[in-house]
Amino acid sequence: MVARLGTVRNPEWPGSIVAIVLATLDRIAVIGLGLIGGSLLRALHGTGRDCWGYDADPAVLDLAGADGFEVVTTAADAVRDADLVILAMPLPQVPAALGAIAATLSPDAVLTDVGTLKRPVADAVRAATPGHRFVGGHPLAGTEDSGWRAGRADMFDGAPWSLCLEPGGPDEGIDAELSAWLAVAALVCEIGAHPVPTTAAEQDDAVARVIGLPHVLAEALALTGLAGGPLGLSLAAGSYTTGSRVARTRPELVASWCDRNHALVGALDEAIGLLTGARDALAAGDSVLPLAQRGHSARMAWEQRSVRTVPVGRGRAQLLAHGRQGGWITQVPDEGDLTGMRPR
Amino acid sequence: MVARLGTVRNPEWPGSIVAIVLATLDRIAVIGLGLIGGSLLRALHGTGRDCWGYDADPAVLDLAGADGFEVVTTAADAVRDADLVILAMPLPQVPAALGAIAATLSPDAVLTDVGTLKRPVADAVRAATPGHRFVGGHPLAGTEDSGWRAGRADMFDGAPWSLCLEPGGPDEGIDAELSAWLAVAALVCEIGAHPVPTTAAEQDDAVARVIGLPHVLAEALALTGLAGGPLGLSLAAGSYTTGSRVARTRPELVASWCDRNHALVGALDEAIGLLTGARDALAAGDSVLPLAQRGHSARMAWEQRSVRTVPVGRGRAQLLAHGRQGGWITQVPDEGDLTGMRPR
Repeated sequence: MVARLGTVRNPEWPGSIVAIVLATLDRIAVIGLGLIGGSLLRALHGTGRDCWGYDADPAVLDLAGADGFEVVTTAADAVRDADLVILAMPLPQVPAALGAIAATLSPDAVLTDVGTLKRPVADAVRAATPGHRFVGGHPLAGTEDSGWRAGRADMFDGAPWSLCLEPGGPDEGIDAELSAWLAVAALVCEIGAHPVPTTAAEQDDAVARVIGLPHVLAEALALTGLAGGPLGLSLAAGSYTTGSRVARTRPELVASWCDRNHALVGALDEAIGLLTGARDALAAGDSVLPLAQRGHSARMAWEQRSVRTVPVGRGRAQLLAHGRQGGWITQVPDEGDLTGMRPR
Repeated sequence: MVARLGTVRNPEWPGSIVAIVLATLDRIAVIGLGLIGGSLLRALHGTGRDCWGYDADPAVLDLAGADGFEVVTTAADAVRDADLVILAMPLPQVPAALGAIAATLSPDAVLTDVGTLKRPVADAVRAATPGHRFVGGHPLAGTEDSGWRAGRADMFDGAPWSLCLEPGGPDEGIDAELSAWLAVAALVCEIGAHPVPTTAAEQDDAVARVIGLPHVLAEALALTGLAGGPLGLSLAAGSYTTGSRVARTRPELVASWCDRNHALVGALDEAIGLLTGARDALAAGDSVLPLAQRGHSARMAWEQRSVRTVPVGRGRAQLLAHGRQGGWITQVPDEGDLTGMRPR
């Protein structure tokens, strides 16, 4: 009945796959119990899976343990029996975490992560544990708060979740990498989120525009808005408050979502071009109306876009085409087409 | 007992003031029943004052009448018996509204408004009804929705409310202009908002940074964020959603808050400078961390600033100094010092 595919390796040749067989991701280690990892441990616990957490900070482990979750006190022990290992720490800490778990990872364990940028973490995993299957993931969820206490089991309800797949592999059939992708996608659906099939490069380009750019703009607004003197402190209200909200995020996290993502340079160039156009119009006694009309149209078109349910084939090419068209997955059955939603 | 000051004019010389005497703002006409005017009519109704509304759109009058509010079907009739006339229409419509009411305004009526920019409306009032006292007002409240139905009686709870006063007048004592300012300030306090004493020029400079700038940035984000293709449509989430929220505002309103406010050119120059710095850092392989740290500090300092209760003298200079220091008024007693809050 269980049709999630896994692999059997020759124990003398751990890199080789001798068969693709049934497998499940039933034993899950969450490494890092901050806002996202902590929410994920709660959400996975809610599915009835066997899951446990580890955090480098013993105080966080105590909190999670006191809240009734299973915790393990070393990263090496935490991954030993896991089918799926979820890396849930900021990008700069990923290489050290991989170093701590590489020796005790089961050869068949699947790795995933929850970071914003997918290219650098894929590079780090390939360097540290080249024989393991890695499905880069990025839940578009969270708040500007952080830490175990800010986590919630329903954090991922309805959230998009980039799930990385690279083109290539066999033209037909399902290889070990794709089987891991499908199993992780099924799990993401199970906790209420929506996997978006994408390559690491395409996701990072898109994220430059919808995460990096809004954060950099919010920082610039937070600073400039209040630089005019104390009067502005009391007049700052609605638009300043929401426009600068994400400047509340810890600066190190913002930097980890922006730095080394070259697509953000292009996105900033476009935004600076629009702002300079508005600035020049104002200086010439003209209006910002044309920009406001275009911005309003873009926002309303996005907000009001309608989507339809579509079948999505199980192949890499079909999945990636679906994501590239703005689609996401809602269901991963044991066999046959997946179910997805796509803009009309 | 009633110590709000008004004026008595010589009927043969309507411009002259023969005495400053007790007066109240008990009969209030709200001209324009959109989001702000409609909320104001509801809030004033809650104070027990005699108040009524007018809107150029008969359908809006019908809605307000059906909701139990007194409405008048022409602007000229609406202002005839009013002590206070509140202009609550977008800036471009103010001159026409003034034209419609100038002939029937009582000579002692006080005018106020609720627009974002205070210099242009003051110019328009001076041109249309030079003999009347005008207290420019700007409630920092509202949502990106509009219209009578979106209004709420509690819209102004705790909201800052710029209230314009110009330096000059007698060194000591209270002239007719200042008496009108104090009476409007008392009314603003009564509906739960916080008058911020300021000159029109200083308020417009501050508003360029905390209203104009966040709107222009939101428009640029709304456009650029989604310009990368459909994948971004499904990955846009928290930071894109809040960062572009005010791009939902009607473009004509955004333009009316930005156009002809020269201070916005300078604010945009500063923001563009910060963004260009971040762009160049990224292009050179450096980090956006310095900008993120400064933006985070600015936002947190604003959010966490502490204020204390202070007495504020009734003179123009004391009131304006209080506003310039980031302070606002919470209470306008019949005599003696006002009560205010000011950052420590």
